[in-house]
Amino acid sequence: MKRVTFVAAVLLAVGMWTAKPGVSVSLGEEPTAETLKHMESEFMKAALEEGSAGYMSFYADDAVELPNGSEAIAGKENIAKGMTFLDDKNNRLTWSPVGADISTSGDLGYTWGRYEFHSKAKDGSEKIERGKYMTIWKMQDDGSWKVAVDMGNTGPKEK
Amino acid sequence: MKRVTFVAAVLLAVGMWTAKPGVSVSLGEEPTAETLKHMESEFMKAALEEGSAGYMSFYADDAVELPNGSEAIAGKENIAKGMTFLDDKNNRLTWSPVGADISTSGDLGYTWGRYEFHSKAKDGSEKIERGKYMTIWKMQDDGSWKVAVDMGNTGPKEK
Repeated sequence: MKRVTFVAAVLLAVGMWTAKPGVSVSLGEEPTAETLKHMESEFMKAALEEGSAGYMSFYADDAVELPNGSEAIAGKENIAKGMTFLDDKNNRLTWSPVGADISTSGDLGYTWGRYEFHSKAKDGSEKIERGKYMTIWKMQDDGSWKVAVDMGNTGPKEK
Repeated sequence: MKRVTFVAAVLLAVGMWTAKPGVSVSLGEEPTAETLKHMESEFMKAALEEGSAGYMSFYADDAVELPNGSEAIAGKENIAKGMTFLDDKNNRLTWSPVGADISTSGDLGYTWGRYEFHSKAKDGSEKIERGKYMTIWKMQDDGSWKVAVDMGNTGPKEK
């Protein structure tokens, strides 16, 4: 009986430690780099199915976008204004992660990979632009993963 | 006496938990986003003083570079081949962080900011290119901070 109480007390002490605010460790279900790659496919699915609204639903309110050839854009609302091109059915943005990593606390990580942007040229032919991206993923207070920062640049010039 | 043993056992249990491999928490000296901004100024100083060797000394062996207009470059050795332009005294790369964040475990974080690249144009005049960057910082096994991924793109077209 004494032993049982002792074990319970140790478990309680460890439990209190893991419950430290801001540190969330769910044993057996710890998020990994694969979790972030999975988030990324959900993110893309939302953008393909629901356009800019789906895309933006994965952004944190205080997210920052670092677009190629422009100034940094701060805040989800401002970023959304530049993403309405995803609502044009002629446009199709797809991407796929290559690398990913996550902190040991499982609350901050990144993915990087390659994207393809398909659109319609003036002559009606399909135009494809290719590039790279890096996305910072941050776990929010409600346990959801959101994009904190996103950056893109171009791939090599195509011949 | 029994109580002392009990407390010691709880401390031991908690100690074992915090000593879990890969989780390093140094209380009182926990790295913050400011730590990463400070690393960034050390990083720049090394590049300005020692050229490409100083710059590359901040890269992890398995780092990835995502340069604008090129393919991803994997591995410190391969990245170094593209950084020798920093050894030309006519070239000067400076940068300064705007945003930064770090995981609660203090082992993974990022900085993003703006850079300026000063070089000499063909006519001998000074040429300045401006852009943005994002850098992933990862604490290594020896406790040092190294660049895990680095990406850059251009700012708005200058008139």
